[in-house]
Amino acid sequence: MQRAASWSAGTIPAKAAEILASIRQRAPRVHCITNTVAQNFTANVLLAIGAVPAMTISPEEIAEFVAGSGALLVNLGTLDGERREAIGAALEAAARSKVPWVLDPVFIDRVAARGSFARELIARQPAVVRLNAAEFASLSGGSMSQERLAQFAREHSTVVALSGQTDHITDGTRHAAIGNGHPYMAKVTAMGCAGSALVASCLAVEPDPMSATAAALTIIGVAGECAAETAKGPGSFAVGIIDVLHSLDAAVLQQRAQVT
Amino acid sequence: MQRAASWSAGTIPAKAAEILASIRQRAPRVHCITNTVAQNFTANVLLAIGAVPAMTISPEEIAEFVAGSGALLVNLGTLDGERREAIGAALEAAARSKVPWVLDPVFIDRVAARGSFARELIARQPAVVRLNAAEFASLSGGSMSQERLAQFAREHSTVVALSGQTDHITDGTRHAAIGNGHPYMAKVTAMGCAGSALVASCLAVEPDPMSATAAALTIIGVAGECAAETAKGPGSFAVGIIDVLHSLDAAVLQQRAQVT
Amino acid sequence: MQRAASWSAGTIPAKAAEILASIRQRAPRVHCITNTVAQNFTANVLLAIGAVPAMTISPEEIAEFVAGSGALLVNLGTLDGERREAIGAALEAAARSKVPWVLDPVFIDRVAARGSFARELIARQPAVVRLNAAEFASLSGGSMSQERLAQFAREHSTVVALSGQTDHITDGTRHAAIGNGHPYMAKVTAMGCAGSALVASCLAVEPDPMSATAAALTIIGVAGECAAETAKGPGSFAVGIIDVLHSLDAAVLQQRAQVT
Repeated sequence: MQRAASWSAGTIPAKAAEILASIRQRAPRVHCITNTVAQNFTANVLLAIGAVPAMTISPEEIAEFVAGSGALLVNLGTLDGERREAIGAALEAAARSKVPWVLDPVFIDRVAARGSFARELIARQPAVVRLNAAEFASLSGGSMSQERLAQFAREHSTVVALSGQTDHITDGTRHAAIGNGHPYMAKVTAMGCAGSALVASCLAVEPDPMSATAAALTIIGVAGECAAETAKGPGSFAVGIIDVLHSLDAAVLQQRAQVT
Repeated sequence: MQRAASWSAGTIPAKAAEILASIRQRAPRVHCITNTVAQNFTANVLLAIGAVPAMTISPEEIAEFVAGSGALLVNLGTLDGERREAIGAALEAAARSKVPWVLDPVFIDRVAARGSFARELIARQPAVVRLNAAEFASLSGGSMSQERLAQFAREHSTVVALSGQTDHITDGTRHAAIGNGHPYMAKVTAMGCAGSALVASCLAVEPDPMSATAAALTIIGVAGECAAETAKGPGSFAVGIIDVLHSLDAAVLQQRAQVT
Repeated sequence: MQRAASWSAGTIPAKAAEILASIRQRAPRVHCITNTVAQNFTANVLLAIGAVPAMTISPEEIAEFVAGSGALLVNLGTLDGERREAIGAALEAAARSKVPWVLDPVFIDRVAARGSFARELIARQPAVVRLNAAEFASLSGGSMSQERLAQFAREHSTVVALSGQTDHITDGTRHAAIGNGHPYMAKVTAMGCAGSALVASCLAVEPDPMSATAAALTIIGVAGECAAETAKGPGSFAVGIIDVLHSLDAAVLQQRAQVT
C-alpha cells in the first residue's frame, strides 16, 4: 500500500480520464466469462470504450484466450457446469500469466450453491469483487457498513466495490464513494455486468486495482447521467450510454464526477 | 370457472391497467427458461414493465430460483439437453411451490421431437399455452378455429393464447380477441418470446390466468402501436417499445385497447 | 465457371438490388450456428432484410432445421463441444439436402485448436469463407494479397471474402472489391457475424456464390453508410442499420455502391 500515502479520492476524476485515454490508445483485450443475457451488451460497452472483448467459455479454448488478455471478468450469472469448468481453467491461466481478474457474484443471495462457489473463488485472489448490497450481505453474513466492507477487503486482500445509489469502493485502507449514475441503470439488464467488465478493462491498463475500480465506476456513472439527459426510457437509455461511452470527453468526465 | 358469470372481454382494458399497476408496485420475480436469442430483450421488457427477471437454466440452480419466483416461463427455443433437464427440474419446483407457468412451444412445427416434448409438457398443467397458428396446427392436428381452440383449452384445462394479427385467448368457456399490435412486431426477434414472459409477469400478480393473459397481450399490443408511431424501422421500434412499456399510462392503455 | 465470361464487378450493384428484392419476396429460412454474443443482433438483421432466421444448435434438432433451410451459417465464435457436434450434424444435413453454407472462422488467430477445426471444415466445401486479415493469415500461413486469396479460393473450390476497409471477394477467377462501409461497423459486436449471415441469406436465393457474396457485402456496406449519417455513436448506429436494412431502396443501393 505504498500508494496510500499520496492517494486521495479527489485524484480519481483525473485518474479516470487518464485511464480512459489509455484504454482507447492501447485497446486491451478483455476476456469475459459472463452470462448469456449480458454478453451482447457487455461486448458493445467494451468496444465503445476502446477495449477488445472476447467471450468464449469453452473449457478447451479459454486458457489460450485468457493468457492473451489484459484482464479477466468472472461473472456468475446463468452459472452451469460448463461455466464452472471454464472458470477453473481461466483462473489457472490467469494465475500463470498474471492476468488480473474481477469477480461479479451475481445473485448469490438467490441460490446457496452459488454463494459457496463465490467463497471458493474469493480465496483465489480476485483483484476486485464487485457486488450489490444483497450479495454482500449473503457473502459476509451481515448488512453493509463501511467498516465491514473494509474488513472484508483486508481479510481477502482484494478491492471491494459495492454498487448502489452511491458506489463504495475500498481496499481496506483507502475508500472512495461515487455519487454518479441514474435510476435507469437499474432498469437495463446487464448494466451491472457491463460495469464489472469496465472495471476489468481499467485493470488491464492500470496497475492499482483501487484506482482502476474507482475510475471504471466513475466513467460508467457519468456516462449514465449524460445518456439519461436525452433518453425517453430504459430502451433508448441503453443505446445512448453506448454512444456516450464512445465519445466521452475528459473534461466532461472530470467536471461531472462526484467522488469523495 | 366461477368467474365466468361476471366476466366479459370488455373488462379487460381496466383489468390490464390494474395488473400493470400491481406489477410496478410488487415487482414480481419471473423466472424465464428461454432461448439464448431472446434472453436480453426479454429481460429488458420485464424490467421495463416492473418485474424482476432471472434466466439461469443450470439444472443445479433452477429449482431454488423457481421456488422464489412468482411465475415461470418455459420457452422451447434453442432446445437442447441442458434445457430439457432444466425444464424438468423447474416444473417440479413450480408444482411444489404452486408457481404458475406459461408454455411457449416455439417452432414445434419445424422439428418433430420438439412437438412431442411440448405435448408432454402440456400434460403437466401450464396455466397458459401461447403459440402461433403454425404451432397450434402442429399441436392440435388441424388448422385454427375458435371452436378448436376452445376444445383444446378444455381438454388440457389451460388457457390458450394464439398470436396473430388478432390474438385469440380462451380458457374453453370465455373468449377474448385483441386487435392491438403492429406489423413491426413480427420483424423483431424475440418479440413473441418477450410477450410470453409478459404473460408470466401478469400471472405472478393476477390469479385468473384468462385475465392475466388477455391483459398481457393488450399491454404489449398497445405498447407496440405507440412505439410504431415514432419508429423508423424494426431497430428503433424494438428500442421504443421498451421505452413505452416503462412509462405506459393507464389512460392510454384503456383508450387504445381493442378487446372484444 | 461458365458465368465468368459475362460477369463483371460492375454488374454487382444491380444484382444486389435484384437479390434483395428476391429475399423480401421469398423470405428464405436461414439457419445460423453462431455464437451467443451475436445471436440476437444477427436474427434482427436477417428479419430486417426479409429472411427467417433459426438458431438452434441442439444436436438432436439441427439436422431437421438445416434440411428445411435455404442456407446455413457456421460461425466459430464461442466454440464449445456442443457447437462442434452441432456443426457436424448440420453439415451432414446440408450435404444431403444440398443446402449451401458459409464459414465464418472467428478468432482462429487467437486459439490454435479452432484453426485446425476450421481447416477440417474448409475441406467440407463451404460455398463461401468469410474472414478478416488476421484470420486469413492464420489459415493460409501468409499475409493477404489478391493473388494469395485467389489461390486459396481455387485450392478449396470456394469463394473467399476478406473483410476490411475494402472487402475483397474472389472465387479464384473473378474478383470484386467493395469500398462501402463505415468505421462504426468495427465498433458494434457481431456486425461481422451478421454480415456473414447476410451472405447466407443471399446464397439462399442466388445460385452463384460469388454474386451472392458480393451482393451481401454491398448491401451491408451501403446500409452502414446510410445508418452512420444519423448515428450519434455505435449504439444508435447498431439500431439504425437495422432500420436502414428494412427499408433499403434499390435506387439508393445502386447509387451508393462502390464495387470494382
